[in-house]
Amino acid sequence: MAQNEAGVALVAGGAGFIGSHLCRALVDQGYEVLCLDNLQTARPSNLRLLEALPNFTFVEADIVNPLPQAVLERADRITRIYNLACAASPPQYQADPEHTMLTNVVGTNHLLRLAEKTGARFLLTSTSEVYGDPEVHPQAEGYRGWVSCTGPRACYDEGKRAAEALTFDYARMNRAEVRVARIFNTYGPQMHPDDGRVVSNLICQALSGRDITVYGDGSQTRSFCYVSDMVDALMRLMESDINPMEPVNLGNPTEFTVNELLEKVLVATGVEGRVTYNPLPQDDPRRRRPDISRAKAVLGWEPTVPLEDGLARTSAWFAEELGVELAQPEMQEPLRARA
Amino acid sequence: MAQNEAGVALVAGGAGFIGSHLCRALVDQGYEVLCLDNLQTARPSNLRLLEALPNFTFVEADIVNPLPQAVLERADRITRIYNLACAASPPQYQADPEHTMLTNVVGTNHLLRLAEKTGARFLLTSTSEVYGDPEVHPQAEGYRGWVSCTGPRACYDEGKRAAEALTFDYARMNRAEVRVARIFNTYGPQMHPDDGRVVSNLICQALSGRDITVYGDGSQTRSFCYVSDMVDALMRLMESDINPMEPVNLGNPTEFTVNELLEKVLVATGVEGRVTYNPLPQDDPRRRRPDISRAKAVLGWEPTVPLEDGLARTSAWFAEELGVELAQPEMQEPLRARA
Repeated sequence: MAQNEAGVALVAGGAGFIGSHLCRALVDQGYEVLCLDNLQTARPSNLRLLEALPNFTFVEADIVNPLPQAVLERADRITRIYNLACAASPPQYQADPEHTMLTNVVGTNHLLRLAEKTGARFLLTSTSEVYGDPEVHPQAEGYRGWVSCTGPRACYDEGKRAAEALTFDYARMNRAEVRVARIFNTYGPQMHPDDGRVVSNLICQALSGRDITVYGDGSQTRSFCYVSDMVDALMRLMESDINPMEPVNLGNPTEFTVNELLEKVLVATGVEGRVTYNPLPQDDPRRRRPDISRAKAVLGWEPTVPLEDGLARTSAWFAEELGVELAQPEMQEPLRARA
Repeated sequence: MAQNEAGVALVAGGAGFIGSHLCRALVDQGYEVLCLDNLQTARPSNLRLLEALPNFTFVEADIVNPLPQAVLERADRITRIYNLACAASPPQYQADPEHTMLTNVVGTNHLLRLAEKTGARFLLTSTSEVYGDPEVHPQAEGYRGWVSCTGPRACYDEGKRAAEALTFDYARMNRAEVRVARIFNTYGPQMHPDDGRVVSNLICQALSGRDITVYGDGSQTRSFCYVSDMVDALMRLMESDINPMEPVNLGNPTEFTVNELLEKVLVATGVEGRVTYNPLPQDDPRRRRPDISRAKAVLGWEPTVPLEDGLARTSAWFAEELGVELAQPEMQEPLRARA
């Protein structure tokens, strides 16, 4: 790698969905990027896209273990550490809950120690899951959440809360300069088709002609942020001079029901889908929407990509991935989901 | 150690306040006791008391590290694992918040892996702190709490929530047989005089003739369980056939304000104290009281030692420790605290 002026940005989880977009944007901004990923959920095709980039190095590593030699070798040039490492969809993070918890606590701690040692700035990607199944809408950062620490989502939700606690303690003890983002639902190209998240589920089911599955009655709401908006926000947060003790919600505050999302997916894919309604999984939040006042005020940021546009781009990408020809959405009338 | 029929009970944190009482009770019940403690907060005098017991072995070890040889040597005879390891008072657990978090997550995980490997039953001592600064009174186990994951108590509160999540995941995955106790304020002989907890603070200040410090205006309430009641509850919970996915509140539901406690301490110590009121620390809960319906129903347990009796025994013990002669409480009239 050439020795760029911006130095090295370490991206843990950089081969994942948001991580791979972030790596590309960091390269574009002049960083050398060192991407660590255990390839637990990352798609090989994401990695192929990344490995074609200049100033990009991939190392297969699990941050639960001591950091690899490639990190130690570059330690004096690392200026930014982004921690995006953790499976984020319930079927994936529940497959090995012990590993999910250790990724968030031990893995985050390894990266924080690196930040302490190198003086690099550290950004934790936390999650809207720290709010659990919230009792207030929208959620501002001061809301303490309604999280079950005994349920099947706890390994992730409580793991992220523990990772936040650890990160803020490094800041409180002046051990590291930190930023904490609470990421709400994000979607876009390079999502995993099988990760069980609602956007990818609906698009892939529609494109593959399978029955479309909605959990619950579809009246639960979500907000969906397109990935380019999210990456922009993460980089702004990292470079901002925000009070490091303040977590920042990042997401799109425009709220849609799952049924509304479904309708837009059917338009974007040009598919007439058959819908089946399944019971809600345990602890699935009924509703979640970010209050992004802090991000607006401190980062000058808000999402810019409308859901229709983002779904069109995402559907086009999934269609190519799955080898499906996409009907021209202009040619189609919006279709009603059938119960 | 003789090879007792009950087998070996491992007690992590066994040299601490509750731990040392538990070790003694387990020896009394016929267990060989293997006590691990890093001596971070344990008093050497507790250890001296314990080391006089038969069938008792102490090993200085920190459960954040891989378990010591003494554990591995006895692995095939370990039948019970009690995890009481973690500094529990804010000044102590805040001194090294990273270590507090790792004790709860990595340390608990080491013990859970031992339980998985040996088939021993595992009991986690969680805490009323998982309820944070609660919005409902009293707190039943289904209450999800009001905990800040960004504040200075988070290393402990979120650490314990994470430890619970991990423990319940071992049960959910059928990896270990577990029990989770949520311990509310407990007091008694062998408390640390300087741990910043309200009972020991008040008694020690009264006995040493210092000004007595109350944080806030003293109207915040607490419930106080005498240590013999708590140890009885922990052992009943361990031996019960409760649904392992259910945490159990253990504590005394009788509520006192800190000012009422102060008055009883002045009676128990026979001291006329000067009281100064200091600001409440950040995130200090205003009020907390256990709903112990589950413990009553499943364990047939409730506290039996009245606060006056417990304070008398505790004051007598502290007086001996501090080399102070205790005035006869019968001789004294209750004294009013002065603002």
